[in-house]
Amino acid sequence: MAERVVVVGADAAGMSAASQALRTAKASGRDLEVVAVDRGHWTSYSACGIPYWIAGDVDGPHGLVARTPDEHRANGIDVRMLTEAVEIDLDARWVEVHDTPAGRRQRLGFDHLVLATGAEPVRPDLPGSDADGIFGVQTLDDGAAVIDHLATRPERAVVVGAGYIGVEMAEAMARRGLAVTVVDQAPEPMTTLDADLGQQVHEAMEGMGIDVVTNASVEGFDTGDDGRVRAVVTSAGTFTADVVVLGMGVRPATSLAKAAGLPLGEYGGIRVDERLRVPEHDGVWSAGDCVESYHRILRDWRHVPLGTHANKQGRVLGTNLGGGDAAFPGMVGTAISKVCDLEIARTGLGEDEAADAGFDAVAVTIQSTTRAGYFPGAAPMTLKMLAERSSGRMLGAQIVGREGSAMRIDGCALALWNDMSVADLAMTDLSYAPPFSPVWDPIQIAARKLADTM
Amino acid sequence: MAERVVVVGADAAGMSAASQALRTAKASGRDLEVVAVDRGHWTSYSACGIPYWIAGDVDGPHGLVARTPDEHRANGIDVRMLTEAVEIDLDARWVEVHDTPAGRRQRLGFDHLVLATGAEPVRPDLPGSDADGIFGVQTLDDGAAVIDHLATRPERAVVVGAGYIGVEMAEAMARRGLAVTVVDQAPEPMTTLDADLGQQVHEAMEGMGIDVVTNASVEGFDTGDDGRVRAVVTSAGTFTADVVVLGMGVRPATSLAKAAGLPLGEYGGIRVDERLRVPEHDGVWSAGDCVESYHRILRDWRHVPLGTHANKQGRVLGTNLGGGDAAFPGMVGTAISKVCDLEIARTGLGEDEAADAGFDAVAVTIQSTTRAGYFPGAAPMTLKMLAERSSGRMLGAQIVGREGSAMRIDGCALALWNDMSVADLAMTDLSYAPPFSPVWDPIQIAARKLADTM
Repeated sequence: MAERVVVVGADAAGMSAASQALRTAKASGRDLEVVAVDRGHWTSYSACGIPYWIAGDVDGPHGLVARTPDEHRANGIDVRMLTEAVEIDLDARWVEVHDTPAGRRQRLGFDHLVLATGAEPVRPDLPGSDADGIFGVQTLDDGAAVIDHLATRPERAVVVGAGYIGVEMAEAMARRGLAVTVVDQAPEPMTTLDADLGQQVHEAMEGMGIDVVTNASVEGFDTGDDGRVRAVVTSAGTFTADVVVLGMGVRPATSLAKAAGLPLGEYGGIRVDERLRVPEHDGVWSAGDCVESYHRILRDWRHVPLGTHANKQGRVLGTNLGGGDAAFPGMVGTAISKVCDLEIARTGLGEDEAADAGFDAVAVTIQSTTRAGYFPGAAPMTLKMLAERSSGRMLGAQIVGREGSAMRIDGCALALWNDMSVADLAMTDLSYAPPFSPVWDPIQIAARKLADTM
Repeated sequence: MAERVVVVGADAAGMSAASQALRTAKASGRDLEVVAVDRGHWTSYSACGIPYWIAGDVDGPHGLVARTPDEHRANGIDVRMLTEAVEIDLDARWVEVHDTPAGRRQRLGFDHLVLATGAEPVRPDLPGSDADGIFGVQTLDDGAAVIDHLATRPERAVVVGAGYIGVEMAEAMARRGLAVTVVDQAPEPMTTLDADLGQQVHEAMEGMGIDVVTNASVEGFDTGDDGRVRAVVTSAGTFTADVVVLGMGVRPATSLAKAAGLPLGEYGGIRVDERLRVPEHDGVWSAGDCVESYHRILRDWRHVPLGTHANKQGRVLGTNLGGGDAAFPGMVGTAISKVCDLEIARTGLGEDEAADAGFDAVAVTIQSTTRAGYFPGAAPMTLKMLAERSSGRMLGAQIVGREGSAMRIDGCALALWNDMSVADLAMTDLSYAPPFSPVWDPIQIAARKLADTM
């Protein structure tokens, strides 16, 4: 008889796991039956694409869906949309689900449970924070709600939080013609970068007319009699708003897991081993934005909700669940984005992170260009690199620059991954031709300068 | 008393060595006097920029010069231009130089000799190959000669050889409005790529109106009574030409070294150790296009004349000569270029190279996109990757694609450098955001597919 797998959450991690489990099971002769439930309308989509949908760059929501429920069904997965998992009994081995349209509850027994419940936007516990017109942006359904609201022709947007989602959404709103204010409690936007690089993001945002208010904390939301948000009240003043976007980060959506008695980590995420099993809970697996991931440089766990990890983890989980053998080796904190005309990327540790983790780090920041200096289109880029003083081991890198800058972060990420010293990195065989880089690639200029300080 | 260093050749390797030697000597308290001689007009220039100068993209020759003779002199180097080294006596420790404008010879004694004589274009030993209007393209003086010739308004160009220089010069000539034919003896242009990828280069060249004649060998050059080239005679027919560019590769310019009794390697290059010393010849050093470099994957020596190696080797040589300690760790065969609208890159071994070297290699070729498939500007790219069947170790990668494709080769080069397996590479933490890549980066799709075959 087939073993039954219940997957909770049908986005990247859940459906990668489901698909890969069936594929692997087929090869290994294992008999699996897979049911996937999700409370939303969409499977396997690119949440990272939502700001570009809202900006009007891409067609949504269908254009952001990599594989529809019907396509998954054609592959043998019993996908049930608008179906919310509401309770799990790990001893009795069932998940109770609520079929929203039918208003019906049902218990699904399982041999294996895959928790892929994702993350949810942080909502401040402040007066008015549930008013109409205040949106988190995490799911396609969230994106659709913003798009619907934009049809009411709001004129002023306030974005709370200047992380990736915040700055991308601020740009999207500005490009839709709204007057946009971004409020953040940090001294500069984009705190995944050190402040000296974050300042360039600040300038780029102002350059496209976005009002950036830093060192300001949100104190509440003014709401009209119609229940709609009117303004955001902050320590730096009150900002009128017809629409508010919450970009205060996300946290693992693990209330279901917690209620079921699964242990959570320091950041509220589910802790899994490298095969994506929940330790000491046989047959329970988890992947994606609801888990914590191992940070190879910090040698500790962090919550890093990114599609790239979700897809890889889902695949690894599915391989193991299907009878194969795979491991998710952790991450090094790589991220990339584009804000206005600036490309932004980072990997490893920033200065504060390195200090907090007890590293004695040395940093250099260099100015270079995306192409040979004399080549048409050569554009400025700033690259900051950190290394451990005692060993010379690279600890992290950050890039802010114009088109053609940011993908260099992959070279830095692979150097980190392999524990390379900056002296060694400076002498590696990276590509060079005038349309692509200066003869000393910016990575190698920075690595060389760092090595020279040691 | 100061030790005297004579540097022969004042381009990237020679002048990097000279500058770094003085810098290091100053720090280490060593007293060096540096004389650099060169038969040409220019120091420290970007030869890679010559095709773009000829195309009209960049201003030459001055725009391609990173540091002029006077700038080097201001840094304390006695630079002597238009001064050709004609003989070396390693026992008596002098270099005889010929000051061309003065018509005078002089012997320069040395304590240390740095040979940075570069490479010279291969000229076929065929009838008419010295005719006017036939150009190699290796030095700024060569570039200036081509520019002068173009002022005579030639209409038809034939490029012999479809390697990097050949295809770049073909494009440059086409963009200058000449009718261009490229002749190569291989089945496809760009034999640093496997033929299946070279075919895309072939199509891109034809797409911009360049006539590409493959499987054809040159048999001679028809010359007019005025001594100027009229046509290129090949096994596939005779092609009219008002100007001919030789893109048949270069060889190390080592006749001086050979005459002095220095041992040369299999490819005619000077063999140096990783500190850039010529073994068993105390005080004799060499770097740049005149040396052979260690190929880390082949575990053997090759002649790979590229500015990136020349600069690194020059710097390493200078550090050691100045009393410091540095090593050039070899290379892995990384190269990048742009032909018409195609970006091209490669690192490590191609299929034939891997087979010749005795590797049992598996290859996959994938089609992917430069950005998330739904993102505006997502452009097609082809990535081919090779791994060793027994170990899964990555052996090489090749990329052909539209804008935003080719720099991914640096990730592949660093994976190679660190002896990563394709299974490990597939799970590394590379960057992802829709404007930059699909959620599985093409590198990781290829690595994963290769790993799946093992």
